[in-house]
Amino acid sequence: MSAYEAFITAVKDIHRLQALQGHLGWDRETIMPEKGASARADMLSWLAKEAHSRLIHPDLGEMIAHLEAEPGLDEDQQANVREMRRAHDKAVKLPEQFVADYARAKSEAMMAWQDARAVSDFSAFEPHLERLVSMTKEKISYLEVEGTPYDALLDEFEVGMKVSDYDPLFAGLRQRLVPLLDRIMAAKETSPDPPWPEGLEFSIEQQTAFCTKVSEAMGFDFKAGRMDASTHPFSAGLWPGDTRFTTRYDSSEPFSCLYGVMHETGHALYEQGLDPDHSYTPRGAAVSLGVHESQSRFWENQIGRTPAFWKVALPWYKEHFPSAPEWDPTTLNRIANKVTTGYIRVEADEVTYNLHVMLRYEIEKQLFNGELTVKELPKAWNTMFQEWFGEEVPNDRLGCLQDIHWSMGAFGYFPTYTLGNLYAAQLLESMAEELGDIDALVESGDWSPLLEWLRPRIHAEGSKFSPADLIEKATGAPPSPEPFLRYVEEKYGRIYGL
Amino acid sequence: MSAYEAFITAVKDIHRLQALQGHLGWDRETIMPEKGASARADMLSWLAKEAHSRLIHPDLGEMIAHLEAEPGLDEDQQANVREMRRAHDKAVKLPEQFVADYARAKSEAMMAWQDARAVSDFSAFEPHLERLVSMTKEKISYLEVEGTPYDALLDEFEVGMKVSDYDPLFAGLRQRLVPLLDRIMAAKETSPDPPWPEGLEFSIEQQTAFCTKVSEAMGFDFKAGRMDASTHPFSAGLWPGDTRFTTRYDSSEPFSCLYGVMHETGHALYEQGLDPDHSYTPRGAAVSLGVHESQSRFWENQIGRTPAFWKVALPWYKEHFPSAPEWDPTTLNRIANKVTTGYIRVEADEVTYNLHVMLRYEIEKQLFNGELTVKELPKAWNTMFQEWFGEEVPNDRLGCLQDIHWSMGAFGYFPTYTLGNLYAAQLLESMAEELGDIDALVESGDWSPLLEWLRPRIHAEGSKFSPADLIEKATGAPPSPEPFLRYVEEKYGRIYGL
Repeated sequence: MSAYEAFITAVKDIHRLQALQGHLGWDRETIMPEKGASARADMLSWLAKEAHSRLIHPDLGEMIAHLEAEPGLDEDQQANVREMRRAHDKAVKLPEQFVADYARAKSEAMMAWQDARAVSDFSAFEPHLERLVSMTKEKISYLEVEGTPYDALLDEFEVGMKVSDYDPLFAGLRQRLVPLLDRIMAAKETSPDPPWPEGLEFSIEQQTAFCTKVSEAMGFDFKAGRMDASTHPFSAGLWPGDTRFTTRYDSSEPFSCLYGVMHETGHALYEQGLDPDHSYTPRGAAVSLGVHESQSRFWENQIGRTPAFWKVALPWYKEHFPSAPEWDPTTLNRIANKVTTGYIRVEADEVTYNLHVMLRYEIEKQLFNGELTVKELPKAWNTMFQEWFGEEVPNDRLGCLQDIHWSMGAFGYFPTYTLGNLYAAQLLESMAEELGDIDALVESGDWSPLLEWLRPRIHAEGSKFSPADLIEKATGAPPSPEPFLRYVEEKYGRIYGL
Repeated sequence: MSAYEAFITAVKDIHRLQALQGHLGWDRETIMPEKGASARADMLSWLAKEAHSRLIHPDLGEMIAHLEAEPGLDEDQQANVREMRRAHDKAVKLPEQFVADYARAKSEAMMAWQDARAVSDFSAFEPHLERLVSMTKEKISYLEVEGTPYDALLDEFEVGMKVSDYDPLFAGLRQRLVPLLDRIMAAKETSPDPPWPEGLEFSIEQQTAFCTKVSEAMGFDFKAGRMDASTHPFSAGLWPGDTRFTTRYDSSEPFSCLYGVMHETGHALYEQGLDPDHSYTPRGAAVSLGVHESQSRFWENQIGRTPAFWKVALPWYKEHFPSAPEWDPTTLNRIANKVTTGYIRVEADEVTYNLHVMLRYEIEKQLFNGELTVKELPKAWNTMFQEWFGEEVPNDRLGCLQDIHWSMGAFGYFPTYTLGNLYAAQLLESMAEELGDIDALVESGDWSPLLEWLRPRIHAEGSKFSPADLIEKATGAPPSPEPFLRYVEEKYGRIYGL
């Protein structure tokens, strides 16, 4: 066995153990009986420990060092060595006792968050958040990353991204999104969004059939995957040839299910398009959260929330919901693109979504760079929301307790959502340059050219390059917010007649 | 950490890896998309290899040896040391290359069997069966077990059972079952079984609701388990608090689903009744296939195929199948107990079932003890079937190609089915001595005393004792065929008016 083969065997073992965690996680969220919860938590922690002990093993470190000095590796092999170096170095820096304590603190915080959110009581979550922030700061000190403390967290979720990247990016976005939102809200005074009729009923069977049709049209291979139901929709590229995503149902309207399915199918198409020759290695895995989110947002928004989509989908809609009102594509599209100043990020439209993200970014940055205490957090949140959205936050459930991320210790995660939106718009522009009029293509009903464009440029490349390099190779330009701003100003200017 | 604690940590790791195989196997049979098959086979083999390498590890061998010399262990701890000694010794005797080759040969044989069975062509399966028999003989030579070669195989599936146990047992059974069958077939000439009407339709939803009701009445906890559909019904005690079983549906009649569910629920109740304090150790696992089968057959036949059951189930039947004919409990019970000389074991009634098992036992014994070649097998099968059942076997699909077991290398498995039938009847007699009239108890509709009787005597004991000792402790007598023969002669004598 060559040195590289021995290395890749060890790498695959680690990824197999992580894939098993993914499978048991999918099962827990979709079909596990409730009394299985305790044994499931125990098994997930056992698998994590097994994977971690292999990741920090000195033999792996030696193999990596040996291969870094080896001149004959190809680009794919180099990518695997590079990514395993990053993962190994980070893992060995953390004391084992700290890893165990941190995991337990996160489990306890998540339970406390669920209870606190249910009764909108920040004080019940505060000591847990206090502890997580403090332990996360301890973690940052172990990692010894250059730059501000918050930079270390940002890098965990999108490699290479720092405060010095996000600050100007977000300032530029805010400068144009806040005025756009103001103009839309003013336009709504004279031309309100069409109301959604009360008392309609969309059965789970009808919604499932309609959304399956859409997912198939996007190119999802149901022989190599499944769609199920869960409380929070998600997508999981479980195994080669077996990618699963979930949705949820609102019986009074079909849009939350539809756009949930388009979003998750976008993620799932990325997973189905990874290179199976590199399964169980970084080279065969998605490169980053930001790029993953670009795939989901592309299909959900750039394709799904357009008049062209609704021209194709209207016959399917009529077929599956025969008793629904007789909408025309323009009205359905307007309903699907309603802009509001709601409090909840996951329900936000394309104009306000990134403002929700930035608010969280600002809070996190101040928390970790020492300008804000946990105690001051709700007030800081509400003040910023009032300033940007023009609305007072009535309670913490609709404010700083709404998202699960902080209770999981996922500080630095939110900005990747915005990166996804920006990447998606940039990909759409490049796609249009090569494929011509995208609206006409969507209207034709054959969407395979879209997927075929994404497959070699994004999906099959896995983690061969950094996220920024991947986007630049695919679009010919480094990541930029301009395509997104052009897109959102043009689209909503048209919808609201600005 | 004490020596025993270190040992049990290693034992649990092995069982966790086996439980993961169980979970992925359940998923494959129920919900896996078809293109996931190749990666699934690969992961199952990886998990098997991981578990095997831990099982044969010299450190485990040393821990076992150390604990065998340790005087202070309690009964539960001794059981774990004893069972791990058996598993470790067996595993280390097999050369690793042989284990890998044997696994591959079995995979290939199973695929060949599926094709051969589909077209009823034994010659297409013959070279694979030849190779499996030959490799199994090689395996026997490694195991160095006392007694005949076939004894080594029998011991794998029910510890302690040998040809010298089964031969007199089966001869005694045959001596009374063959004449009983003859008398029943004669009685049917004048009093035929009621025919099942053609053209009835029982929907999957109706059958699921009816069978769920029965399974719940038996005591299955659906908060700690699931029922799903699969091609071949099975039960899997996947995790503490998460036991799953499956069924299948025939839209023309509800009995195959009903009795499949009662059978698998019987298995599943055993799994739900294991002692969670001993999870992931032999002490916390079912003791043997024979005892497992006693639990499934007990509920399916001794409880489910009785007039008392049908008195309770008739209102449920009417509720869930409102358009079915107006049967009375006696007729439904007669339909559920129809005796026939059909060719297929899995469809056999209680009188002929054990004859099917014995036929396979005789073939296997002759194969491994050198009195029969693979080439001669179909003829030997058909001759014996003609002699015992009075029917000519029209083709090998209805004959020696019907069961999957041999293609899996599971030689020596079949006799455990008969042990299950015998244990079940013996348990029923003891139960009646303690609980009184079982028919009256079943008719009351509250079946919890049955489960409460089995729980401490069988389920919670796990592998604390050998199968024979367990049955003797539960019933006060060593395993015997007499209770079964009394039961079957009395029951079918009554049904057919002999």
